[in-house]
Amino acid sequence: MKIETVDFFYLSMPKVEDIGDGSQDALLVRVTAGGIEGWGECEASPLVSIAAFVAPMSHGACKPVRDVVMGKRIDSPTDIAALAADVEMQCMDLLQAAHTFSGIEMALWDLLGKMKGVPAYRLLGYDKAYPKLPYASQLFGDTPEQTLAACKKARDNGYRAVKCGWGPFGRGTLKQDRDQLQAAREGLGPEGHLLIDAGQIFREDVDAAAARIAILEEVNAGWLEEPFLGGAYEAYANLAARAGEVKLAGGEASHNYHMARQLIDYGHVSFIQIDCGRIGGLGPAKRVADHAAARGVTYVNHTFTSHLALCASLQPFAGLEEDRICEYPFAPKPVAYEMTETHLLPDRNGEILLPDAPGLGIVMSEEGIARYLVDVQISARGERLYSTPPVATAAVREDEGG
Amino acid sequence: MKIETVDFFYLSMPKVEDIGDGSQDALLVRVTAGGIEGWGECEASPLVSIAAFVAPMSHGACKPVRDVVMGKRIDSPTDIAALAADVEMQCMDLLQAAHTFSGIEMALWDLLGKMKGVPAYRLLGYDKAYPKLPYASQLFGDTPEQTLAACKKARDNGYRAVKCGWGPFGRGTLKQDRDQLQAAREGLGPEGHLLIDAGQIFREDVDAAAARIAILEEVNAGWLEEPFLGGAYEAYANLAARAGEVKLAGGEASHNYHMARQLIDYGHVSFIQIDCGRIGGLGPAKRVADHAAARGVTYVNHTFTSHLALCASLQPFAGLEEDRICEYPFAPKPVAYEMTETHLLPDRNGEILLPDAPGLGIVMSEEGIARYLVDVQISARGERLYSTPPVATAAVREDEGG
Repeated sequence: MKIETVDFFYLSMPKVEDIGDGSQDALLVRVTAGGIEGWGECEASPLVSIAAFVAPMSHGACKPVRDVVMGKRIDSPTDIAALAADVEMQCMDLLQAAHTFSGIEMALWDLLGKMKGVPAYRLLGYDKAYPKLPYASQLFGDTPEQTLAACKKARDNGYRAVKCGWGPFGRGTLKQDRDQLQAAREGLGPEGHLLIDAGQIFREDVDAAAARIAILEEVNAGWLEEPFLGGAYEAYANLAARAGEVKLAGGEASHNYHMARQLIDYGHVSFIQIDCGRIGGLGPAKRVADHAAARGVTYVNHTFTSHLALCASLQPFAGLEEDRICEYPFAPKPVAYEMTETHLLPDRNGEILLPDAPGLGIVMSEEGIARYLVDVQISARGERLYSTPPVATAAVREDEGG
Repeated sequence: MKIETVDFFYLSMPKVEDIGDGSQDALLVRVTAGGIEGWGECEASPLVSIAAFVAPMSHGACKPVRDVVMGKRIDSPTDIAALAADVEMQCMDLLQAAHTFSGIEMALWDLLGKMKGVPAYRLLGYDKAYPKLPYASQLFGDTPEQTLAACKKARDNGYRAVKCGWGPFGRGTLKQDRDQLQAAREGLGPEGHLLIDAGQIFREDVDAAAARIAILEEVNAGWLEEPFLGGAYEAYANLAARAGEVKLAGGEASHNYHMARQLIDYGHVSFIQIDCGRIGGLGPAKRVADHAAARGVTYVNHTFTSHLALCASLQPFAGLEEDRICEYPFAPKPVAYEMTETHLLPDRNGEILLPDAPGLGIVMSEEGIARYLVDVQISARGERLYSTPPVATAAVREDEGG
């Protein structure tokens, strides 16, 4: 089947706050081919990623993603990989293209799965999906009291694992960080998995990060995530050698397979965290999962947005029974929650299991999407390059008219 | 002085061809502060990079570049570095931000140099600028005959070094590549420096690249550039170990300091090629030059566009006497040539020397810029986010009116 249409939808809360909550807006992609539609989501700046789809060509290796994607035949996973390689070469100098294509690639697995009537994880080579233990992913409170309350709430809601991140961590004194960590542990209780996300706050300063190791060990933290800039592998490796019981996690910034691989090989992380909405989709993510397995590194999804992104990001490691933990958007903003009709909820064991349904296994909500749709117009030389498309498909519109 | 205005200008040839010539369009940045103006150029997709300047914020670590830059105080190189670090953190999840900020950072050095009355290379810590030997950078012809003619022409024009790249190289048989290489050597003559640019054609295929080593040695090629994807360090390292007399070059894809550093440390290139319009400007480029010098690796600029980009990209290694060779835009498209009033021409020794003039040392041409200006409009939620600004400054417009 040939790719016929590719539509981008920029959704947003009416007001976006200056906090580390990535669920405040979203960029959805709908791809149609052979009468079937697939959905994907870019974990990326919506306007910029749309521009990368429609921008005029700069030269032969700086084309808009649209020029490479439209009209291509997709009948198998190999076709998706070939298209990804084409994008990599022909959009080589268009940095944002990786983020733009991630949502498209995701939609292609959804589409292909629906065409063949199988879940995406089967197309990726897994026989079955294993249950994952979700960790409630949330921001540190401004005060230890707030952090304690948030962790207690997650525990009361049945979560056995919690991640606290960003906010004040690493910005003040060691004492302040210790108070935050102790509060998180107290709220979660002694048994729960406590994970800490530094949000790159130490940049390349290994000593500053190493100074936190003792207070992380005190609370038995399961990992220290993203202490440094995404590409500072040497800093990661140096800290890994000094981190005692504390394991390092990272990788969400990876916008291609190689970046994630190198964080493993050169940065010596113990957990590699991949966002399918950034790394180029499910294909490169699965390749990272294979490499991680070969190196004894645990693969974890990075998902702070919707249940579409969640269902996509779980596929590449669905079949890895040992890689148990998964990031779970615990309290997303309404825009991220309402865009899907169905959701992936913890079962009575508090575990998450991918649906045994075609493609990504999630049903989108046209109404939810329309509620948060942002009207965007882009033109150059008087030519309209992008204008927000209608959410309702032609078929639905006919139904409504009939 | 505080950053008062930042204006982006998208220039383009009327028709952009699907060839590897990166001089067909351009994105200029004009920054004003304290009554002075500085100019920079992003080596990037213009429309997408403009979008990264004006896009609505997605969250605290995915802000448009504009939100971080406007109103900031710039009185010293330290202030530029601090602003760059701010952009890195606050635009963390906006991939294209690195390309957008590169032109702004460049303009800030121009501005600061003008304010202090010294060339940018002095602000970077060099006492003087040494002459460089320019290599004429051009594409392989479609046929060996065309390649021969182009290399002969460069030689007749006084160039002692030529780079041939892209086009058919690596796409056909070994015999065809050999014919191209032999033609290039014949055109250039036995004495000239012949450099070969593979334009990432072998992706990660070390064997395919290694198969070309013998025919590169035959023509005494000075380097093999970008055989692989920019981030495939392992492939670089494996080829470096098998490349005999042929040295590897790469790095133009680096959009931060770490990527370039890692291509040296993990990829074992002998030449590190940095485009100041992509890596984040002159600051990170100088840091790469320092690291390269410490590792015995030769720094080279990557410049395929304008003489503004050329003057900027020479500054970070102006004071490195041993790093002799420089990329020179030999036959840029009119848009790239006409945007500047002055140009950096080879002297009678065939060498290039940075002007001993404040800032980047180049004079822009308002007329040349206006000639190729593309009208762009971007709006979201009915609000105009970007509209192509006038090139003429207020002062000039008053003069014209007077």
